[in-house]
Amino acid sequence: MITGKNQIGNQKSATGSVTFKTFNPKLNIENEHTFNEASAEEVDQAAKLANKAFKTFRNTSGKQRAAFLNAIADEILNLDEELINTYCSETGLPEGRAKGERGRTVGQLRSFAALVENENWREPSIDEAIPDRQPMPKSDIRKFLIPIGPIAVFGASNFPLAYSTAGGDTASALAAGCPVIVKSHPMHAGTGELVATAINNAAEKTGMPNGVFSNLNSKGIEVGVQLVQHPKVKGVGFTGSIKGGRALYDLAAKRPEPIPVFAEMGSINPVIVTENALQSRGSELATTYAGSITLGTGQFCTNPGLLLGIEGEALTAFTKELGEKVVATEPQCMLHPNIKKGYTTKRDLVSEQSGLQVVAEYYSEVAENYAPPKIATVKGADFLQNPKLHEEVFGPFSLVVQCADESQLLQIIESLEGQLTGTIIAEESDYANLGDLVDTLRERVGRIIFNGVPTGVEVCESMTHGGPYPASSDSRFTAVGINAIRRWIRPFSYQDFPAALLPDALK
Amino acid sequence: MITGKNQIGNQKSATGSVTFKTFNPKLNIENEHTFNEASAEEVDQAAKLANKAFKTFRNTSGKQRAAFLNAIADEILNLDEELINTYCSETGLPEGRAKGERGRTVGQLRSFAALVENENWREPSIDEAIPDRQPMPKSDIRKFLIPIGPIAVFGASNFPLAYSTAGGDTASALAAGCPVIVKSHPMHAGTGELVATAINNAAEKTGMPNGVFSNLNSKGIEVGVQLVQHPKVKGVGFTGSIKGGRALYDLAAKRPEPIPVFAEMGSINPVIVTENALQSRGSELATTYAGSITLGTGQFCTNPGLLLGIEGEALTAFTKELGEKVVATEPQCMLHPNIKKGYTTKRDLVSEQSGLQVVAEYYSEVAENYAPPKIATVKGADFLQNPKLHEEVFGPFSLVVQCADESQLLQIIESLEGQLTGTIIAEESDYANLGDLVDTLRERVGRIIFNGVPTGVEVCESMTHGGPYPASSDSRFTAVGINAIRRWIRPFSYQDFPAALLPDALK
Repeated sequence: MITGKNQIGNQKSATGSVTFKTFNPKLNIENEHTFNEASAEEVDQAAKLANKAFKTFRNTSGKQRAAFLNAIADEILNLDEELINTYCSETGLPEGRAKGERGRTVGQLRSFAALVENENWREPSIDEAIPDRQPMPKSDIRKFLIPIGPIAVFGASNFPLAYSTAGGDTASALAAGCPVIVKSHPMHAGTGELVATAINNAAEKTGMPNGVFSNLNSKGIEVGVQLVQHPKVKGVGFTGSIKGGRALYDLAAKRPEPIPVFAEMGSINPVIVTENALQSRGSELATTYAGSITLGTGQFCTNPGLLLGIEGEALTAFTKELGEKVVATEPQCMLHPNIKKGYTTKRDLVSEQSGLQVVAEYYSEVAENYAPPKIATVKGADFLQNPKLHEEVFGPFSLVVQCADESQLLQIIESLEGQLTGTIIAEESDYANLGDLVDTLRERVGRIIFNGVPTGVEVCESMTHGGPYPASSDSRFTAVGINAIRRWIRPFSYQDFPAALLPDALK
Repeated sequence: MITGKNQIGNQKSATGSVTFKTFNPKLNIENEHTFNEASAEEVDQAAKLANKAFKTFRNTSGKQRAAFLNAIADEILNLDEELINTYCSETGLPEGRAKGERGRTVGQLRSFAALVENENWREPSIDEAIPDRQPMPKSDIRKFLIPIGPIAVFGASNFPLAYSTAGGDTASALAAGCPVIVKSHPMHAGTGELVATAINNAAEKTGMPNGVFSNLNSKGIEVGVQLVQHPKVKGVGFTGSIKGGRALYDLAAKRPEPIPVFAEMGSINPVIVTENALQSRGSELATTYAGSITLGTGQFCTNPGLLLGIEGEALTAFTKELGEKVVATEPQCMLHPNIKKGYTTKRDLVSEQSGLQVVAEYYSEVAENYAPPKIATVKGADFLQNPKLHEEVFGPFSLVVQCADESQLLQIIESLEGQLTGTIIAEESDYANLGDLVDTLRERVGRIIFNGVPTGVEVCESMTHGGPYPASSDSRFTAVGINAIRRWIRPFSYQDFPAALLPDALK
């Protein structure tokens, strides 16, 4: 049941005076429930309670936390239709997507549960003593990984389940033994409250300390700012815009005790298509990419916003066909009127840049909050000298860049900001000449996809979801896959400890 | 041969007009050679050359880099007496220490060479495709670790070899495939130049690209500031003061593209002694700790600056004896007049705080730049309310805190800033009651030593040299041991790559 209240540990709370509602973009009306933004006192309570819970939670066994994570997954599934309906009413996304994302969320929780079922994730390492070593005896030193403390997680607008309340950041932090305080995303506060209730039910059922999880509603930026500055908060997980992520990063860096911020931010996910590939299967590629560009109304962080090829007939033909197919796609609803407004503004800003040519645009009237897709093209030289063309347009828009030659193509890749993904579309006959391209592209991205599309992030150990700034604020970590736990841990060493005082994992 | 010039890759260079000399603190005179501070152009040249070298260096095999690291170790040993004599003349440290530190430096280089001899350090991970998975086929995804780019390393005043030019930061960065630009420490610029020459000789002999290593002299802060702000520099390693480390951290965080800074900064390394231990072996402990406090003139980052016990006769007797033994230790020379001045100022500032009592102080006259050791004591309540008493006094000074009871002891530990180490001195009869102490102390430190001294950092896989801020700027990493390589790498994934284009480690 949605109450609109915050959850400070297992208590519902609403002491603040600021309220807001979520919005149904498909119906273009406000949803029913009224949410109370967390007050400064509530933020402080949640952080202090998380710190108190940390004293117990950090010493739970991996098996206990695995039971907790699996119970969260079960409780989320128990929410059933109420969750799916709330999700759809707060996002304009279809039921199939809601269920798919729920499946991914539950899968992530269970994969972190499996990870911490035993203590190998702590990377236990033992260097035994050598008492008779010359010139000095060697001590017995044993190391493993321990949690860093309460983590603030910022829900993402575009993934209300998989990157929000019980998403990858929360699952990995809880798995590590870090309590979590979620700053709920205002666009899907109802979905957030339902999932938060599921987490606290699971915490109670599996005997976790009160305060291991809190959920704070927010309309403006105050709750997030206070959380990141709170001395009891020791790390931050964020998925969203460059502007938002950088603001949190800056706040955290200015603290008396700076804390790590893992922010997964913008990306235009360049796709490089060779002439051979265009010649042999340009039409098929146009179909595939029209689908990838418009998937989820272009609201994926791995949406292909930039296609690069060598100028010529093959690229011109492909671009024309891509435009036709993108425009033939029925426009879909965006997450929120603000997101739609951002899409229109950004797309129009890019469109008016010098040298840019519109390839195809959906001109018929669309319903309120629906996004007409668009494809544009530009010469490599114009792209190179105009940083505005390098910026993300969040939505179903893509820019095809006609590079003068191989060397300009590499130069363009080197000029790009850091990206989550890069994609190479090539034929077997190209392989021998792709060395420089792969090497150059690898420096700018976290993952290269070969002959595929960047949309769709597999949750597995080998996945990297992150990349050089601003794809993420710290490229040394991934936000997806079991190694995401490394964001919230630190190494700790025991020297010459008696067995009785060592943790089991190091005995 | 010492020329006083900078080394931009394999070229000696001295275009700047600022010069300086190093200082022999034992003789209290300037050393012979004149050093040229790097000019802004030279800093820029070094960074650009490092970026160029990175394109080749990142693709060298682990075996090639291992040969390079081993060659550096060999070249350092070849410097023989010239290095040892220069080291001693620039630090006032004895020959035995110089040779010991050289051994450690060479050992670190060889341990990173051994680490990258094969590609396991890249943590290769393979998730194979499942083409018939429902509802969607699973892609083939393979991940490993790649270097992040050129690293700026700041030499430490107190370890001219092991934490400077070819120290742990440099060795781990080169092992990962990151070129290194060292900002040489002005107090031992001659030692730095000799080691830099060794590194460049090794680079040439093993076929490494020019620019894989540069060494820049600096007198003031300009060279370091420019390095940390240079767009081609992608990470920073630093060992030194909180003030210096924090300044670099702040600069790096404010860049358009923020970069990671791993700064190992101050620590007072609390030692907790139980009443039982004091009663059964107080005298022996006083001897051991008098040695640890005065070792290397108290100039180790793990120097025990704070001893905590429960007030009473046993602690009083121990403190008295500790004072006597510390004062009986012959005063030793500090690294530099500025270090001596810092010691005197900080020690006197702490000494004048309310409630502080001097236990013992070496009052006889000492030679210029020699440090008279001192022990003081204070009640727990006074310590708790005065943050000035929590600050590091770099040198042979220690403060004994008389805690009212167990609960105040834990409160004091919780009130401390992050530390590199904590130490527990206890008897077997104490073990059953140490749970809370270990748990509380663990939250504030990177390593706990049991019944030993914190001075002496074993170089092994299980070592953690780092800890919560300000012991280090990012507690998620260690500066010592093979895992120090993780500071300079990021995960990267290949999706659906043809075998021909995969790196060998992922085939």
